[in-house]
Amino acid sequence: MNLRSLSALAAGCVLLATPTRSEEGMWLFNDPPRAQVKARYGFDLTPAWLDHLMKSSVRFNSGGSGSFVSGDGLVITNHHVGLDALQKMSTAEQNYARTGFYAATAAAEVKCLDLELNVLQSITDVTPRVNAAVPAGAADDAAAAARRKVIAAIEKESREGTGLRSDVVTLYQGGAYHLYRYHRYTDIRLVFAPEQQAAFFGGDPDNFEYPRYDLDICLFRVYENNQPVRSAQFLKWSAAGAAKGELVFVSGHPGATDRLLTVPELEFIRDQRFPYQLATLNRWEVLLAAWGARSDENARRAKDDLFGIQNTRKVRDGALAALQDPVFMAAKASAEEKFKQRLAAAAAGAPALAAYQRIAVAQRRVNEHYLRYRYLELGSGFFSDSFAIARALLRAGDERPKPHGDRLGEFADARHESLELDLFSDKPIYPDYEILKLGDSLTDLTEKLGYDDPLVRQILAGQSPRARAAALVLGTRVRDVAERRRLYQGGAAAVAAARDPMIELARLVDPEARTLRKLMEAQDEVKQQAQAVIGRARFALEGTSNYPDATFTLRLSYGTVKGYEEAGKPVAALTDFAGLYRRSAEHHDREPFDLPPRWIERRAALALATPLNFVSTCDIIGGNSGSPTVNRAGEFVGIIFDGNIHSLASDFGYDDSQCRALSVHSAGIIEALRKVFGAGALADELVNGHR
Amino acid sequence: MNLRSLSALAAGCVLLATPTRSEEGMWLFNDPPRAQVKARYGFDLTPAWLDHLMKSSVRFNSGGSGSFVSGDGLVITNHHVGLDALQKMSTAEQNYARTGFYAATAAAEVKCLDLELNVLQSITDVTPRVNAAVPAGAADDAAAAARRKVIAAIEKESREGTGLRSDVVTLYQGGAYHLYRYHRYTDIRLVFAPEQQAAFFGGDPDNFEYPRYDLDICLFRVYENNQPVRSAQFLKWSAAGAAKGELVFVSGHPGATDRLLTVPELEFIRDQRFPYQLATLNRWEVLLAAWGARSDENARRAKDDLFGIQNTRKVRDGALAALQDPVFMAAKASAEEKFKQRLAAAAAGAPALAAYQRIAVAQRRVNEHYLRYRYLELGSGFFSDSFAIARALLRAGDERPKPHGDRLGEFADARHESLELDLFSDKPIYPDYEILKLGDSLTDLTEKLGYDDPLVRQILAGQSPRARAAALVLGTRVRDVAERRRLYQGGAAAVAAARDPMIELARLVDPEARTLRKLMEAQDEVKQQAQAVIGRARFALEGTSNYPDATFTLRLSYGTVKGYEEAGKPVAALTDFAGLYRRSAEHHDREPFDLPPRWIERRAALALATPLNFVSTCDIIGGNSGSPTVNRAGEFVGIIFDGNIHSLASDFGYDDSQCRALSVHSAGIIEALRKVFGAGALADELVNGHR
Repeated sequence: MNLRSLSALAAGCVLLATPTRSEEGMWLFNDPPRAQVKARYGFDLTPAWLDHLMKSSVRFNSGGSGSFVSGDGLVITNHHVGLDALQKMSTAEQNYARTGFYAATAAAEVKCLDLELNVLQSITDVTPRVNAAVPAGAADDAAAAARRKVIAAIEKESREGTGLRSDVVTLYQGGAYHLYRYHRYTDIRLVFAPEQQAAFFGGDPDNFEYPRYDLDICLFRVYENNQPVRSAQFLKWSAAGAAKGELVFVSGHPGATDRLLTVPELEFIRDQRFPYQLATLNRWEVLLAAWGARSDENARRAKDDLFGIQNTRKVRDGALAALQDPVFMAAKASAEEKFKQRLAAAAAGAPALAAYQRIAVAQRRVNEHYLRYRYLELGSGFFSDSFAIARALLRAGDERPKPHGDRLGEFADARHESLELDLFSDKPIYPDYEILKLGDSLTDLTEKLGYDDPLVRQILAGQSPRARAAALVLGTRVRDVAERRRLYQGGAAAVAAARDPMIELARLVDPEARTLRKLMEAQDEVKQQAQAVIGRARFALEGTSNYPDATFTLRLSYGTVKGYEEAGKPVAALTDFAGLYRRSAEHHDREPFDLPPRWIERRAALALATPLNFVSTCDIIGGNSGSPTVNRAGEFVGIIFDGNIHSLASDFGYDDSQCRALSVHSAGIIEALRKVFGAGALADELVNGHR
Repeated sequence: MNLRSLSALAAGCVLLATPTRSEEGMWLFNDPPRAQVKARYGFDLTPAWLDHLMKSSVRFNSGGSGSFVSGDGLVITNHHVGLDALQKMSTAEQNYARTGFYAATAAAEVKCLDLELNVLQSITDVTPRVNAAVPAGAADDAAAAARRKVIAAIEKESREGTGLRSDVVTLYQGGAYHLYRYHRYTDIRLVFAPEQQAAFFGGDPDNFEYPRYDLDICLFRVYENNQPVRSAQFLKWSAAGAAKGELVFVSGHPGATDRLLTVPELEFIRDQRFPYQLATLNRWEVLLAAWGARSDENARRAKDDLFGIQNTRKVRDGALAALQDPVFMAAKASAEEKFKQRLAAAAAGAPALAAYQRIAVAQRRVNEHYLRYRYLELGSGFFSDSFAIARALLRAGDERPKPHGDRLGEFADARHESLELDLFSDKPIYPDYEILKLGDSLTDLTEKLGYDDPLVRQILAGQSPRARAAALVLGTRVRDVAERRRLYQGGAAAVAAARDPMIELARLVDPEARTLRKLMEAQDEVKQQAQAVIGRARFALEGTSNYPDATFTLRLSYGTVKGYEEAGKPVAALTDFAGLYRRSAEHHDREPFDLPPRWIERRAALALATPLNFVSTCDIIGGNSGSPTVNRAGEFVGIIFDGNIHSLASDFGYDDSQCRALSVHSAGIIEALRKVFGAGALADELVNGHR
């Protein structure tokens, strides 16, 4: 499991994804809800307005969103999006995550190890070309291969023609394919981070709750050729910020939604995927919390993983609660049944009905093999950086010589720079922590696949899971970046000659892991094609009023700054600094409600009524973390950092009665920068739009 | 699951239970290791010495051990054994567990709500009478019923004849039955408890670790007829306490060991019982930790459960690690195989070999039904006090009218006073905490038994697990003690007429739960009989050099005060107060390494070189918590409170190379009472043996 993707928050809102109601929707920038917004708010989403917002929005490849907020390359995101980078640059002596950081001068800015930012430049519909490349009536495997091939060709052509990162994105479950071209930045330097205590005030207990009081921000400066990027494509800062009742927009990268899943697919998630994942997250949370409590240094090493685990655990818990709700599931089933009846009555409904059948069959195959797939291929059995690197090196040796279109997805040309950035990262890897994690995963693997399973016996090689983990971690050389480079460059022969125990473990597991992956990808392909058939039928019946499920590509949401009711009591839309100090006092200033020293010392200087956080009805989900919230003028009025507890099922549906997106308020950011952090120059740059 | 039994610690040591080696053994007081101790240490365990130690030893029915340490009824145990009682008498305003307590006068002593202490008075072998009551060749069910009946008769007869609590204990897997008669005390008053911070210094991170620095003690006074119990049966206090290299004894109530289990039984524990339990413990630990972090009051309410959960989690983790170790399992398998070969070669070995077969068959039946049994009968699906009470009321109505011998075990006459004490306890039950726990268990139940399972659908009654839990907890009246009494006295008719939703839930589940329990008890009976056959064959082949597995009855262990090696480095046998302050400083005095204020203020007054904790090679396990450690003179030199990390597989075997039992040192207790707590009068009572 890639934990960086866990650090993306998941939010959005409960219920069903039948025709768009309320303020539901994660809209494409090339197909915006122009008519709806015009009708409801009298506001026109002009192409120029959209283009500027698009080019000011940033994707953090580590799993999050952000935006340019000055003409001198300043990018704002969440602290929890930047955390991975802060963690990687930290040492036992200098802990950027805990103590925070401010570079008052350009020289003081610190370069990140392996952060990649993407800025979307254009969207092109390539559906006809992709569909034309798939022979009519092709078998699923052949269709998938043909589609992969044409997509790779389009991406390569575009990249070579424009120099831009080029990704073909599958939308509407395969109903459409759009080419997204990004400007790619890799020289990213840290400018400002608050203390994690302030960014994540209230910690796991307050995570996904509201009211909140979090300064969940982090500022980077983007460089090219060793100079800050200078551009007019940035968001003007609103000093007043968001006001109650105001129309706002969110421009960001929602990671994934599943609002059009069929009932058998939802049942699989309810009965296997989420329960298995929650069981793993629970055991990891207990493992890391207990180990972290043994010493400060342990806690520092585990902090980033632990945060991601707790975050995802809450998300999955909330979503599973909806899926286990008979009312929710009955509504999903009934909506599907009604749609099938419409299909049955329609002239051209038969293929879509058959597609439902194919999905059900494919899902049954997935169900049968999912457990082993999860443990052997998805990484539940080998939780450690060392194994992930060892497998990447092994597979790089096997995959890179193949023709582009035949490779495993992560070895596609379009991803190879990102892959190398990741593989050769200087991020520290600690043997004791690796042994802890791998030992626990091998224990779990032994439980789940069975002590007598032949592959498990080979994996353990006659040792107990913990002893085996220690032998593997202490025996491998993959923690040495130079060794990684050598093996990567040397290819399969060098990898085999190394006889590295961790790589040999990856090799041992690889035949079955690859078989399972192939099987799963084949079912995905069946489902994708079937969903495309259903999707086209849905369009035919329901028109184009729907947005596609989220795909970690740029989307536009809209909504209102608005409170809600909780157990019959009103919850106000905005919080302020006074509330922050109140909540801290309620908890005797104890962790995770403790405030860093300067927040206590400088309290008197703060205008305590300044807004700090606010909620809106915008439809968001994990990956939207760090998205700018903007007003009609396209000005930055806040930054998304979380969803409330009611939003945790929004993967599957949306309802705006209680579900809210949480933002840090732009006025609160300026107040904190000036009064708490003495970062007046940075606040000036934000307000003025340049240094 | 009864969490009070979780608060018993599990300790002891790794390896195999073939003929007694090293200092292995939890010996019966009526069959002590007199020859071995004489041979090895030149010390004679005389009947008088043993009788005095036996009558000075105390069993805490809530799950632990203790001893009389003054002629005025003073009993010492561990803080973590007393914790359940401290918790029950605490309120939001007065938290005995957190702040500690000292009653300087008799009037200040606080009565516990539902604590029961037992003091063993005699042991009588009743094996012939029990065996005679079971007809030769009886079917398993009939045999079990006959045995239950005769045991009930013996217990009743003894109780009525002596006025003493009378329990027939099954030993040697059914090879022997001994009648244990106890003096039973229920008026127990709190005299002294340190702050939990001091008792459990280092918390979960240091639990089962060594070196340690815990003042894990708690003192109660036992009353009868409103007067302290005055008796000469108490342990003289050793002011000097345990010394390095000294022979020591432990007299306590080890809960359960499984050192003679067959390979299929061990495989079941490895593949089902421990993994299922660990998964449940992990989810509960995460649930309670997250909820406890929301407010101080939440944390107080969850503290006792959370401690029990973390404690058991470490124990199970350690034991599972041994069971998943191919070396350990291969040794177990080989020992069993060798014994079977001896049986095959012996004239009368055939019945024992057949018994192994019967165990294997019975185990397969258990394996098939264990998951549902665990969720429906053992309580994994209904984690809440309300459900436990509701079920007890329902079953009391059904069971109490039956003839004594036909009832479920917990409704036997011998247990009815304990049952009522528990059922009518004034222990506070908090609805929000109940909803949290029950909601999570119903979620887990839905996952494990399946959303579409007919019984699960009936249990959820059309609601989501959390909504259903809220409806049940808010709708039931079983939290009202008067209502409980009314229903208990009114019997089945009153229980039915109440139409209480929680009781009706228990009723819904009861048919299958009872069927599963009957099936499991039948398999236990098969195994018990088969183990008795094997046991007898073992005695025939190996003599009586072995002790029986632990049964939460009084046992004697012996060993030496002795350090050990850890990763090649020596670990000293004793720690002192200086080490306590050092460890706290290493952790910046932060929780759980923080010291209470008076410990910091009074540091200068302490003789820092006074011993605080020590380790010995005594063979102990969960339930031994609070056992006195005594010297040759039978004097109290310390009190068992934990085992080290190497001891966690001792359920299945023992090896004294690294495994150690941890005690609080008697000198350290006196030093802390006088210098830290200003409890000079109490220290005087201990040293002088009277007030």
